[in-house]
Amino acid sequence: MTDINSPEEKARYERGLAVLTEVDGGSAPAVMENLADIAPALAHHIVAFGFGDIYARPGLDPKQRQLITLGILASLGGCEPQLEVHVKTSLNVGLTPSEIVETFIHTAGYAGFPRALNAVGVAKKVFADRGLLPVSSDR
Amino acid sequence: MTDINSPEEKARYERGLAVLTEVDGGSAPAVMENLADIAPALAHHIVAFGFGDIYARPGLDPKQRQLITLGILASLGGCEPQLEVHVKTSLNVGLTPSEIVETFIHTAGYAGFPRALNAVGVAKKVFADRGLLPVSSDR
Amino acid sequence: MTDINSPEEKARYERGLAVLTEVDGGSAPAVMENLADIAPALAHHIVAFGFGDIYARPGLDPKQRQLITLGILASLGGCEPQLEVHVKTSLNVGLTPSEIVETFIHTAGYAGFPRALNAVGVAKKVFADRGLLPVSSDR
Amino acid sequence: MTDINSPEEKARYERGLAVLTEVDGGSAPAVMENLADIAPALAHHIVAFGFGDIYARPGLDPKQRQLITLGILASLGGCEPQLEVHVKTSLNVGLTPSEIVETFIHTAGYAGFPRALNAVGVAKKVFADRGLLPVSSDR
Amino acid sequence: MTDINSPEEKARYERGLAVLTEVDGGSAPAVMENLADIAPALAHHIVAFGFGDIYARPGLDPKQRQLITLGILASLGGCEPQLEVHVKTSLNVGLTPSEIVETFIHTAGYAGFPRALNAVGVAKKVFADRGLLPVSSDR
Amino acid sequence: MTDINSPEEKARYERGLAVLTEVDGGSAPAVMENLADIAPALAHHIVAFGFGDIYARPGLDPKQRQLITLGILASLGGCEPQLEVHVKTSLNVGLTPSEIVETFIHTAGYAGFPRALNAVGVAKKVFADRGLLPVSSDR
Repeated sequence: MTDINSPEEKARYERGLAVLTEVDGGSAPAVMENLADIAPALAHHIVAFGFGDIYARPGLDPKQRQLITLGILASLGGCEPQLEVHVKTSLNVGLTPSEIVETFIHTAGYAGFPRALNAVGVAKKVFADRGLLPVSSDR
Repeated sequence: MTDINSPEEKARYERGLAVLTEVDGGSAPAVMENLADIAPALAHHIVAFGFGDIYARPGLDPKQRQLITLGILASLGGCEPQLEVHVKTSLNVGLTPSEIVETFIHTAGYAGFPRALNAVGVAKKVFADRGLLPVSSDR
Repeated sequence: MTDINSPEEKARYERGLAVLTEVDGGSAPAVMENLADIAPALAHHIVAFGFGDIYARPGLDPKQRQLITLGILASLGGCEPQLEVHVKTSLNVGLTPSEIVETFIHTAGYAGFPRALNAVGVAKKVFADRGLLPVSSDR
Repeated sequence: MTDINSPEEKARYERGLAVLTEVDGGSAPAVMENLADIAPALAHHIVAFGFGDIYARPGLDPKQRQLITLGILASLGGCEPQLEVHVKTSLNVGLTPSEIVETFIHTAGYAGFPRALNAVGVAKKVFADRGLLPVSSDR
Repeated sequence: MTDINSPEEKARYERGLAVLTEVDGGSAPAVMENLADIAPALAHHIVAFGFGDIYARPGLDPKQRQLITLGILASLGGCEPQLEVHVKTSLNVGLTPSEIVETFIHTAGYAGFPRALNAVGVAKKVFADRGLLPVSSDR
Repeated sequence: MTDINSPEEKARYERGLAVLTEVDGGSAPAVMENLADIAPALAHHIVAFGFGDIYARPGLDPKQRQLITLGILASLGGCEPQLEVHVKTSLNVGLTPSEIVETFIHTAGYAGFPRALNAVGVAKKVFADRGLLPVSSDR
């Protein structure tokens, strides 16, 4: 089994953590810490694999990855906690509130209005907390 | 881009709003107002397209459309806020509490018991608020 | 364990089979027979529970149950074989091709265009086989 | 229609209730009672069919059935209330906290990290209530 | 009801068709024509609403919209026919094969490996037809 | 970015491949080879992460992991190609045809009959190819 405390795995983790820290603006660590007493290996793999192996790949930049992630999470449904983290991350990598909302409006055609509405509801909560309302959406 | 403030779009919106107002019994406006400072275009299109273009079509009557909508929302999962609106709309167009519950029981066979249970839970909250419990369900 | 060959279960099965035979117009037996050498108990329970216990309940009539079922199957996605059976069943209980198509158009707003398109594609195949094209859809 | 108060159905129900009582450790009755004034037939069929007909089948033992159920509920998403019941049931039939968490980590590869995180979140709440944290997970 | 043959609707349709024609590189018309004898209104609304109202909005450019669409369709599952159209559209608006594949690899973490594998399978078929294999993916 | 050709990654891959080879009975390599000209990194990560990091964890044995995987894939829907691979893998690690079918019957209650039917259909094809029909299912 993969020993997540081995030097190699610690290096993988550090690589992932550097990516995560750069993109998430401080939202993700709470998620990871929350796993410490129940599934530390899951936290390790989210960081080492999800961010170190995948997110760090050069084929897409962070803004593009966030747009895709927002579309996926909105469409899957039931991912409100993850959407909240990723709306914050999206702001942090430079997406505007308008682009975030636009992504959810775009989602409506492919996954239906309910998924879009729930995602916008999550964004609204984040934007309200940060004084980003009203969003100067393009009509 | 579609200018949602053009006379043509305002006419489409008004057409949709007339349908929505007739079927929803006052539950939906809050959803629409909630979008005003973040995604007014989404509210516009839900009304103009969702109700004006689709719901208004004569092929199915409002009771039939609500039965279908309840089945869809229950099956998708994670649409509890929309289910709440549509349970209220369903009552408003004349579906009985028993028919609403029956729809969710029917859903169990196609989408499993958990989806059915969550939908019944939403209905129970609405029915309790309106003094509609117990439901005289057919066995 | 439930002995599906006991007199009580055979009676339940017969009750379900009577409902199924009445509504499906001969499409379902092939599905059931297909299970005979791999999961006869699943076939038994679909008939005894799905049709005998649930479908037979008086709260909704067969047309209503089919509308709901079409909406659910379209929305779940990946249920094309079941959609095909239920499009046939829907015709058999008296839904018109136009009502079937309308159900899938209605689905678009709640589950997105791709689900609606795939469901219409299934209906088209069934309608073509039966000489029911073109559908005189409203507008 | 199936008369859920007939002697045959009461016998089916009792058979299912015996299975349910044995496996669930007292978590499920609240779910069933909650249905009493809105959908008693749904409660009947969950017990009679879900537990009496299916769960009682000898092909898989309760631990195996719970592992499968946990994987399904985590993957479907939006089934947090049912996951909570089934995490408790899983503990009751003898799965360890570590096996439960491991199931959700396994789920990540097939249904993605968000589904796994939400499921672990549910387990954490149950484990915290029962003093089962930290989980001595295998690295 | 919305008269899709009215001058206003024809104008909306034309606006949508202009967007669709610009982005899709000729893949979509077949989908639309396929609806002509069964659900012409669905075709109308996909073009008028999906492309004229939504896709045409300036908040996101076509490359961004395609990345989001690919992520959504891959994650929903069972949308292989729509994925095929959108892989072609994505190439047409200037996404590279490598970016398309990268989007599906990114999807793996959020929706699991099976969804990613099915989407890559669709892309492979399109790329093979167009002589775009092997993809010079970034390691 | 993770260099999948580095010694550390090759070691991770080899660890995963050893697990995969042990459990899959020769079904998976074709999937991996199929990715060689389009997404070799995806193949790498499925092996290194999916099998080396996750599947190899000692908390659950291969039979348990396969039961969970079958339940997940059946429930997600649209994963027939992956189900086929995993039905073969399940046989290879020692699950009986009866246990595989039982898993899908169990799935019916949680994800509905259509998902169960599609999964049984995949199993039937595999079992037919291997002369494992009829399955001596319990009842």
